[in-house]
Parts: sequence; structure tokens; C-alpha cells
Amino acid sequence: MFRDITKEEINKVMESAWSAFHVYRKRSLRERADFMRAIATEIEALGDELIAVAGKETNLPEARLKGERARTIFQLNSYATACEKGEWLEARIDTAVPDKNPPKPDIRKMLVPLGPVVVFGASNFPFAYSTAGGDTATAFAAGCPVIVKAHPAHAETSELVAKAITRAVEKAGWPAGIFTHVHGTGFEVGQALIEHPYTKAVGFTGSFSGGKQLFDWANARREPIPVFAEMSSINPVFLLPEKLKIAASEIAKQYAGSVTLGVGQFCTNPGLLIGVEGEELSQFTATLAAEIETIAPATMLHDGISKNYSQKREQALAQTGVDTISISKVKAAENQGSPTIASVSAETFISNPVLHQEVFGPYSLIIRCKDLQQMLEVARHIEGQLTATLMATEADIINNAELVDAVQNLCGRFILNGVPTGVEVCLSMQHGGPFPATTDSRFSSVGADGIKRFARPVAFQNWVNELLPDELKNENPLGIWRTVNDELIKEPIH
Amino acid sequence: MFRDITKEEINKVMESAWSAFHVYRKRSLRERADFMRAIATEIEALGDELIAVAGKETNLPEARLKGERARTIFQLNSYATACEKGEWLEARIDTAVPDKNPPKPDIRKMLVPLGPVVVFGASNFPFAYSTAGGDTATAFAAGCPVIVKAHPAHAETSELVAKAITRAVEKAGWPAGIFTHVHGTGFEVGQALIEHPYTKAVGFTGSFSGGKQLFDWANARREPIPVFAEMSSINPVFLLPEKLKIAASEIAKQYAGSVTLGVGQFCTNPGLLIGVEGEELSQFTATLAAEIETIAPATMLHDGISKNYSQKREQALAQTGVDTISISKVKAAENQGSPTIASVSAETFISNPVLHQEVFGPYSLIIRCKDLQQMLEVARHIEGQLTATLMATEADIINNAELVDAVQNLCGRFILNGVPTGVEVCLSMQHGGPFPATTDSRFSSVGADGIKRFARPVAFQNWVNELLPDELKNENPLGIWRTVNDELIKEPIH
Repeated sequence: MFRDITKEEINKVMESAWSAFHVYRKRSLRERADFMRAIATEIEALGDELIAVAGKETNLPEARLKGERARTIFQLNSYATACEKGEWLEARIDTAVPDKNPPKPDIRKMLVPLGPVVVFGASNFPFAYSTAGGDTATAFAAGCPVIVKAHPAHAETSELVAKAITRAVEKAGWPAGIFTHVHGTGFEVGQALIEHPYTKAVGFTGSFSGGKQLFDWANARREPIPVFAEMSSINPVFLLPEKLKIAASEIAKQYAGSVTLGVGQFCTNPGLLIGVEGEELSQFTATLAAEIETIAPATMLHDGISKNYSQKREQALAQTGVDTISISKVKAAENQGSPTIASVSAETFISNPVLHQEVFGPYSLIIRCKDLQQMLEVARHIEGQLTATLMATEADIINNAELVDAVQNLCGRFILNGVPTGVEVCLSMQHGGPFPATTDSRFSSVGADGIKRFARPVAFQNWVNELLPDELKNENPLGIWRTVNDELIKEPIH
Repeated sequence: MFRDITKEEINKVMESAWSAFHVYRKRSLRERADFMRAIATEIEALGDELIAVAGKETNLPEARLKGERARTIFQLNSYATACEKGEWLEARIDTAVPDKNPPKPDIRKMLVPLGPVVVFGASNFPFAYSTAGGDTATAFAAGCPVIVKAHPAHAETSELVAKAITRAVEKAGWPAGIFTHVHGTGFEVGQALIEHPYTKAVGFTGSFSGGKQLFDWANARREPIPVFAEMSSINPVFLLPEKLKIAASEIAKQYAGSVTLGVGQFCTNPGLLIGVEGEELSQFTATLAAEIETIAPATMLHDGISKNYSQKREQALAQTGVDTISISKVKAAENQGSPTIASVSAETFISNPVLHQEVFGPYSLIIRCKDLQQMLEVARHIEGQLTATLMATEADIINNAELVDAVQNLCGRFILNGVPTGVEVCLSMQHGGPFPATTDSRFSSVGADGIKRFARPVAFQNWVNELLPDELKNENPLGIWRTVNDELIKEPIH
């Protein structure tokens, strides 16, 4: 359908991005924000065609695609607002103290863009985590050109969105190198993009093996570069005893919905449900089993994902000590994923690494602990996660401080009495957790703080006011928050 | 003198640090700050003995050591203040919107500590970048236990400072694992420390080969961890034509001082002086040469550093096309470094990678460009640096926008009409530049922003107010700045 880009073409693309970088980085915050809003408008203008093409390529239902498009547009607009507000710049000013010994010079610091960013689209979010998704939007806000490698599973959708971005670049009258869209089905394209010396950062959402490979290529470069890969997460849910006593069935129903939402194709899908053996956990398990049986299988994103789900699920269910608790009673058609719940003892879970792997789809594993001490052991044996959830009363939390600490320590988002599916786009969101959930737990791929991934601080020492960037000038012409001599203010400097 | 720690002992140290982490991370900002101030007091209480021991081990003059001690104490106290102020926590709160569809939950985010941090002391700063230096102080502020590997060249000094820290831990009544001091002369100790699963971040100041090795070990782990290595920098200085015309001799005198300050043993030592051939550059060169001849060699930090200086300098001077311009007329005694200036054409510089390497000591290379276009070419061929300097008039800057951009793009601190030596400890300082100057240009090892290196965000979703950390409670009991529903305020939430 689309031809893989060649290595020679990649060279040209990166040279064009590098030269565009020197133009784009100098565009004001306002101009960048207007550009991002123009992209949102261009995407809206694609209308029904975009939804139709994406539906054909991803099997996602129309309502879901329309919701995701709205989210993508919201992201572009809200990150544009954040870009303009300039809090992400972390502007710091220390004015000169000439009579100090030695004299203290005037120093002013702000974040500046890293350079061209390569973005790999995600298979499960054709809009929000793909071509004009969060990585692209935050890189543009930071002042970086973007090179998107289309996800082969929705290359036509990607092409449409790319054209919308290109129109926004053209209307701004800027160099074409600010945005490039490329295709590549083999790993060679990704490798060549990452290894190019003009590539300065990478955004990725996908599998662990894919993300880790990009990370390794990036670190093997003469000049290593940051890779923000969101990889795998099984999002453990800890069911604490008092809470389970009062709400076992209610929680089971809530989680039947969360486990099967979007055919389980979310990185925040709850893959582990951890409780203490006893009457309440049995009740929870029985209710969940009954719910799951009634939930019909649905078509997955594409052939590869559905095959992968079947294989991973079979592998998990075949492990010694794993009991199949419930599978949807509705027969699955081709490419559909059957909602499935299994169960295993904590001891077996801890000792079998296969059970710690993500099964991408509508699958969750109940872990039966002998007691709360064993639940703590389970928490200590789970690797880094995007989210972790406690279903707990206040007394549960107060009485299990060590467990609460251990669970917090393994995740980026820590949920109390809720479900992990559903990722709000707001400044307080953290979508990034300790390895292997992501390659850099210090940053988020959702929310305006994601802009900081693609920027680094530069301190200007002893500069003349007129020659400083507007962000750092005495008169604060942009009216942004700045820390001046250790005090956070918006006022100009006299 | 001191025995290398064994692998078994490292296991015990890391287990103890890990268990101390769970205690220390819960200490309030106030308690952490008091602890840091107590360390400063304990270091002061070491009195003259510390200066005497450090003088013996490092050959640094007493005045320099006293200055560095004062700086170290200032760092501890000022980072303690920053820790308490809590701006580094990046607290963000988005309150619930229950009538949104789907309902938006309450989400609150702040930085939390990463875990035990391994710090490698620097040879050239026995106090400020070593045992209780910037890395240790910022890790403590973030809530992380610290394991310091003493620099073998000043192990006794390190031991004294470590005892001061240990006394502060004891007086606070906290677990000993919050701070551990270990010795190791072979690379095995460093490797085992970095590879231990409980190590969560690394601070290092030293050579490129050392820092890069730590970085590679850290990335080869099952769970890669961040390494903040400050490695090598040659800190280019661009002499622009109009400025050189009006101040060639003045600049030459200023730079004679900067090149030889501290026997050139600073990571911010100006190793490249870049000008356009002509009368002014000749005058600059002649004045600098005359100054350098009169500056006496001085004793370097230790045997290894002085041998390394001789070798690297000889290697640089022996390169084809390199002219020796000036060497101090005062004969160097053993272990002393002779101030030296050489000169080379831009063409030769660009094509010979040996000339891009750091010569750690009182050495600088003048690069003669044919014109400003060639100066731009030189800027584009220089790798990442801690600092870059322009000696320029306003007209020079306005007339050479492309050059100014290229120079800014290669450095972390961008100086106008000054010298790079001298690193202010303040919030606006950026001490960290693109690779190979450091392994992560997005962070600074000097200034309170360095705290952020050892922390990551956690978002608390749907938590009960009473169970949230004080930093995120509605009433804002700590009175810190927080971004609440996209507005930066200190007010409580009603």
C-alpha cells in the first residue's frame, strides 16, 4: 500500500527536519499554539472520511473513534494553551550581585527544544497516541520538528491526519521539515530514524519488545538520546479485606466492565486482581465470573493483535496452578477476543515470571493470597506499572501502611476505589511508571507536563536584556510565571 | 589504606539502604531540611582537621579548600531551603468534575523519591562534588538514601565527611541505611553498586570514559536506571570581530586567568578560543602568550592527573598543523602543570577528532578561522558542552544570528562577555549540557533544580483528603505553590 522509506530518503528527511528546527524553535509560544490549534481545525475538517477510514483499518466502533478524535483535538488545544502559558519553561532568573566576592553574574534559565523528535504511532489509538497524538502535540509545543512513522496497521488513517498537519504547516508558511510522515513495515526504518544524528528524542507507545529495542538503539548511539517508550503494564488491583467485605459484588461488576472495556485493548487494562482467600474473595470471583460469561467477545484491532491475545492467553492458562474461572459464553468469531478470567495462588504467581507478562486483551488473573503478608510479598514482586489500584476503606489503608507504600512505589498513577481504565487529559495526570511500564518514569506522555520531555534547560549568563528571549526579559512581555531571586512571580524586574 | 568493599557487603549495604528508603521517604520536607542543615553543621565542626587532611590528599591550597567547604555548606543549606519550599515537587491538582461524561475524578500529582542513589565523588572537588556535595545533598532533599563511593584520591577526606553525615543520621534517630560510605579502587565495586537492583539512580562527576561506563552498565540492567554523569567539556569561547577589535588585549588577559585558574582543573575550563584570522586575533594571541609565559606552573591534584595532563597536552601539540604558541617560562616541578597555549587552523581542527578531546589542565587551543562562515562551521562540529561563551558586542550578536543559534544549541550555559570558570550555586544555574558533556542534558547537577533528578511524579486518583500526603491536601498545610485546576496558587482548596 505504502512504500517503505529508504535510508537515503531518511537522510533527506532528517536534514530537512534539522534545518526546519532552527526556524521553528524561534517561533513564539503564541505562534506554536496557533499552529497546534490549526492542526486541530484541520483534523476536524477531515470529517466523516477520517472516521470511516479508521474504522475500516482498526475495527474500532464509530462512537469510540469519534470519542478518540475529540480527545485528540482536546489534547492539541489544551497543550496549545499550556504552551502559551509558559509554565513548562521553568523560567528562573537570578539577578546580578556585583558586590559579592566574586561578583555574582546575572543568570536566567529556561527550557529550550531538544531538536527533531521521531514519533512511532500506537496500534490501539489511531488518533490520540498516533500521528497527531500526545507525543506529536507536546513535541510541537516544545519547539521540536516531528517525524512520524505511521503504524502499518492504520497507515491510511495516519496518512489522512498527516495531510491535515501538513496543511497547517503550509498555512503558517513554515518550512515543510517541521513535520514529516514516513512509512516503514520492517524494523530497519525505525532503526535508521533513531540512529540518525539529527534525531534528538523518540516517542513510542507499543509493546515491551518494540520499546526496549528503540531504547537500546538510542543508547548505543555515539550521542545517546532520550526515548519515551510506553510499553507494557498489567495494572494490579489490590482488594483489601474490609472493602471486599462490604462491596465484593459491586467491585466485581465494576471490574467486569473495566477488564473488557474496548476489548481489553488499553495499556491501563487491569490484568491482576489480588485478594486474600476467604468467603469475600470467593463471592467476588463468582460475581466476576458470572458477569464475564455474559459479556460478548468483540473484534480486536487487527489480526496480529487478536492472534497475539489468543496465544498469550493460552500460554497463561496452561501454566501449572492456573485455573480458568470464566470465559464468555458467547462464541468468538474470527479476530474476536473472548473475555477471560483465571485464578492462581500468590505462591505460584510469585515464582512464575510468565504470569507477570501482559496479556493484551480482555483478560485478568485473580491472585489468591493466604493473608495480607503474602499480599505484601506479591506487591514487592510486581515490576513497574503505569497504574496500581487499591480497593480499600480508610481503615484498610491505615492498617496496611507497608502494603500501601509498596504499591505506590511500583506505579505512576495510584488509584483509590476506582478503575485504571480511562486516562484523563489534565496537568495532574501521570501516564508513565517505573520500568518496564515506561523507559523513563520521570516523565508523562499524557498531560501538558509531557512537553518537558522534549526540552532541556539553558542558562543565559550575563546577557543584555534586549538580546534575551522574550521569556526572560526584565519586562516579562509574555506575562509568564518566573522564579526571580527564588520568588515565584509574574511581575517585571526593575 | 581502605579496603575495597566486597560484593557480599554491597548486598547488605543496598538492603539496608532499601529498607531505610521506606522510612526516609516519609520524613517531612521540614525534617529532611533539618537533617541537611545538621550535616552542614557537622562538617563545620570538623574544623581545621578537614582542611589539613584534604590539603594533604589533593594538593589544593588552603584558601581554595576553605572556599570549597563554604560552598559545600552553602549548598546543603540552600538546597535544604528549596526542599522545604517544595516548588520542586511540581504539585498539580485537578479537582473532580462529577457531572462530566464520563465523570472526571480528582487527581493530584507530586514528585516522589526514586530510591537509593549511588554517588561517585569527583577528584577535583573533594567537598562540593564529593561525599556531601551537590549530588548527595539533592538526593537527600528528594527523599533518597545515598551510598557514596569515596574517590580513592581523597579517601581520608571522604571518610571524615562521611562521619559527619553519619553523626547527623544518628542524631536524627534514623536508620543507618540512609547514608553509607564505601571504598573501592577497582571498577568492580562501581559496577556491583550500579547493577544492584535496589540502586535507583547514579550521580557521577569525572572522566568521559568513567561516566560512559557507568551509563552503559545502568542501561544494560534488567531495569535501566538514570545516570547523571558530568563528564568532559572543553567550553568553547567565540571571539567575535567587533568585540575583538575593541578589547583584544583585555580579553586575552581575562582568559589567561580563566585558563590557568585552579591549574586548569575545572570542568568549565575554557579549552577552545575561536577567532577570525587578522590583526586583532594576532594581538589577542600575542597578549595571551605573553601572559601565559609569566604564570607559574602549580601542583596538580594528584600524580595521575598530572601525568594525564602531560600526555594529553603532548598528544595535542604533536598533531599536524598545531603550533605551540606559549608555555610558562617558569620550570615545572614534579606533578605541576605548565600553562600552555597552542593554535590551529579551523580546517585542521574540524578534521582531527583528537583536538576535540578535553586536555584536563591549564591548556587552551586557539582556532583560527578564515571568516565568520568558517566559525559557524566550527560551532557545528563541536559536540555538547557544559558551557559556551560569546565575546561579542550587540552588533556582533545581531549580525551573526545563525552562529549564535548554533552555539546556544551545543551548551547548557551560554555566557556573554564573561568566563566560564566559576559556577554560581543558584536556581537559575544550568550545570549540564548535551552529550558528551553530561549523560542527561535535561537536568542540572548544580542548583536546587538538581533535586528533580532523583524523583518521579506519582498521580493520586480519587484519594480521600485525609489520606493524601500533606503536600496535596485541600488545606495546603505546608503552604506550598500548587497548580490547582491549571492555576498556580498557594491558597487552600474549598
